[in-house]
Amino acid sequence: MPFKKILQEDISFFHSISGNNVLTDKEQLERCASDETEDLHFLPEIVLQPDTVEAVSNIMRYCNEQTIPVTARGAGTGLSGGALAIYGGVVLDMKRFNKIIKLDKRNFQVITEPGIITQELQEYVKAEGLFYPPDPASKGSCFIGGNVSENSGGPKAVKYGVVKDYVLNLEIVLANGDVMWTGANVLKNATGYNLTQLVVGSEGTLGIITKIVLRLIPAVKHDLLLLVPFRSAVQACEAVNAILLAGYTPSALEFMERDALEWSMRYVKSEGIHLPDDIEAHLLIEVDGNDMEQLYKDAEAISAIVQQYNIDEVLFADSHEQKQMLWTLRRKVGEAVKSNSIYKEEDTVVPRAELPELLQIIKRIGKEYGFQSVCYGHAGDGNLHVNIVKGKMSDEDWKLKLPQGIRVLFKEVARLGGTISGEHGIGLVQKEYMDIVFNNAQISLMKEIKRVFDPKGILNPGKIFL
Amino acid sequence: MPFKKILQEDISFFHSISGNNVLTDKEQLERCASDETEDLHFLPEIVLQPDTVEAVSNIMRYCNEQTIPVTARGAGTGLSGGALAIYGGVVLDMKRFNKIIKLDKRNFQVITEPGIITQELQEYVKAEGLFYPPDPASKGSCFIGGNVSENSGGPKAVKYGVVKDYVLNLEIVLANGDVMWTGANVLKNATGYNLTQLVVGSEGTLGIITKIVLRLIPAVKHDLLLLVPFRSAVQACEAVNAILLAGYTPSALEFMERDALEWSMRYVKSEGIHLPDDIEAHLLIEVDGNDMEQLYKDAEAISAIVQQYNIDEVLFADSHEQKQMLWTLRRKVGEAVKSNSIYKEEDTVVPRAELPELLQIIKRIGKEYGFQSVCYGHAGDGNLHVNIVKGKMSDEDWKLKLPQGIRVLFKEVARLGGTISGEHGIGLVQKEYMDIVFNNAQISLMKEIKRVFDPKGILNPGKIFL
Repeated sequence: MPFKKILQEDISFFHSISGNNVLTDKEQLERCASDETEDLHFLPEIVLQPDTVEAVSNIMRYCNEQTIPVTARGAGTGLSGGALAIYGGVVLDMKRFNKIIKLDKRNFQVITEPGIITQELQEYVKAEGLFYPPDPASKGSCFIGGNVSENSGGPKAVKYGVVKDYVLNLEIVLANGDVMWTGANVLKNATGYNLTQLVVGSEGTLGIITKIVLRLIPAVKHDLLLLVPFRSAVQACEAVNAILLAGYTPSALEFMERDALEWSMRYVKSEGIHLPDDIEAHLLIEVDGNDMEQLYKDAEAISAIVQQYNIDEVLFADSHEQKQMLWTLRRKVGEAVKSNSIYKEEDTVVPRAELPELLQIIKRIGKEYGFQSVCYGHAGDGNLHVNIVKGKMSDEDWKLKLPQGIRVLFKEVARLGGTISGEHGIGLVQKEYMDIVFNNAQISLMKEIKRVFDPKGILNPGKIFL
Repeated sequence: MPFKKILQEDISFFHSISGNNVLTDKEQLERCASDETEDLHFLPEIVLQPDTVEAVSNIMRYCNEQTIPVTARGAGTGLSGGALAIYGGVVLDMKRFNKIIKLDKRNFQVITEPGIITQELQEYVKAEGLFYPPDPASKGSCFIGGNVSENSGGPKAVKYGVVKDYVLNLEIVLANGDVMWTGANVLKNATGYNLTQLVVGSEGTLGIITKIVLRLIPAVKHDLLLLVPFRSAVQACEAVNAILLAGYTPSALEFMERDALEWSMRYVKSEGIHLPDDIEAHLLIEVDGNDMEQLYKDAEAISAIVQQYNIDEVLFADSHEQKQMLWTLRRKVGEAVKSNSIYKEEDTVVPRAELPELLQIIKRIGKEYGFQSVCYGHAGDGNLHVNIVKGKMSDEDWKLKLPQGIRVLFKEVARLGGTISGEHGIGLVQKEYMDIVFNNAQISLMKEIKRVFDPKGILNPGKIFL
């Protein structure tokens, strides 16, 4: 790529922009060289920390003129390498965009800057009786801006939808420094093209998000949690659909293979759950609502449905501590796997009823290509995370044979009507597989849209597209 | 616009395309010369009725080469002139795309062609225990394809969202004849740009929709309907927010000014409702769910909330006939106004809590510019239809002064954080006001996106943009 390397004069210019922090020493650059994706490492040439829209606009205008690549970065918790400056240049660290601008309680809306930790935003609106549902596993550390950029999901998506379902309007800075809103702060909008939804999930390749308007819903008062141990993992997947077909919509419907839970228990040093030898998988099922009586009824009905399968005893969690413990175990699976082995995480998603078949396909391909996998995820949405662990695989097989296996897996996912990322994004690590789900015409349409927003290609180059 | 007029050789070509009906006689062209928007009339040069994707593709490829404009048409129930061939050319009548291709009950999805009447689709999936909520007033005659093209709403949006919230994937034919899917049939998708949401609501300007994949939800068993008469229209608007702030989410929360209901009663010759002289407006409130006991509780709680305002007696409708009668009255308001006078319909939308102010603004501007208005609509979403009736206004004032009044109104809507169309689209009749809510940079970004899909500008030219 014909990008300009950053020179002393550029650094001087960045220093001259008011509302901008300029970081250049090695240690500071190192902090922005990786995210939570595998062990990837790309050192930016410079890290800028603007805290006003004007500063972002000035930075963008300059970088566009100079053809310097700009990669926006939130909290660095991404799982597809989206925040990594693979061509060097500027990392635009958005951590100082950390204000909640306005909670509009009358309209159930919040206007926020992107650099707020998702959980903090959730707690802030909850204190006012409101609810922002999307909660990725990293909610305690990720930024809402990153969530919007990747169109994140999380356990509650099965009932409440994903980030895109809550974004009403975005303020973005284009590559040329222009600042614009993508829509309006309304629940219904048939006014021109839906630029908002085009920017959601565009992984920092179309503009820099500087303000986010989210719709909220009334807070929900109660929830109950069930952990159901299955002797057959495929049956656990089948039960997911049975629950939904019976007319119940749990607020979470999570699948965990035995290893996922076992490794997580070891990782967080929990002994809270007895795990008999014959258990292959668990479903973690949450129901929520405002009427506790109704919740117990729903939980019992769901319990009756899962009893039709070959299961061990259902664990009902109704104390805060028990629920916390189970959710911690679920949320820590990713980290637990990571701590255990070199790994690669895939983010497959299929029409929900195809999950049992998907699980069997994964295991079959694993055997064929010699890899072990730990599967878990948001079964209620058909979104299964496949953590492939290196284990005893040779370095050569890991490097050469594994991508072939992943390609075969993704082709099967596509055959089932699914796609290659449900909530992590394509970023750097999945772009080589885009051709499986999109043909040339589709890819070039997307690239041309990118060019409309960013004619010189300076915004997060090398992501999504090969 | 430098479009080519259709010649005999073009007609011959259209005849040669298999799976295509070619209509050229005056009477047939007349049937496609208008929609439900005011009294607009634009005669197409030719009407084509393809019934295969291949035929659409061949038509598009030819028209693109020849620079012949193509305007897709559904059932012609649009309210912004979107289906009118204002530059002549081809009207692509999609009525023969009338098959429901697959109801995937296991995955709560339906794959349909665009030329199905929305209500028929709803009834088809309901027979299988599933629910497709978006139900515009014209649901008994409009096509699902038009709903997707305009991102339609309807009464149920307050609880269930609008069309865009149900579209998972679209098959479209581009201007050059290329056929492509915009996404995948999954509930969560973080794979490339959201082309699906870009096409939803794009009013036939980006591609021809040939297949639609909709997500469905489990059917809801029961509902209850309340009609609440308010002595103050502004208080009726205020009550909308009070209900939602109290944590209740009705499945409909509709506002009707006195005239709206009165005219509709006259239009359908109903005497079912006593309308005392001091009533200014009504709220029509529906609650739905699977537990009848809970519904009665909710209805009572909502009733208690509205009692705090200056209201007359609440009408509880729990028989099928009563509910039918009330919904018919609500759905027929538009037609009733139309039958009464020359009119113009605006489709304002604001953050919901600003409704009382919006209503007062409308009346104030009406006084200033000499027009009468009948307001009604989906108050739960902040979406208020403003039917401006010509009444005693002179032809000259109607032509010259009214657009100034509408401009002032839309500026106020924008000031309140709203926008100029909530669910009818921009089409032909609102495009002159787009500059109120979008600046040049935003408009030209949208136009450039259009150019990516349709470089020669043959798809529904003269819509959305000036």
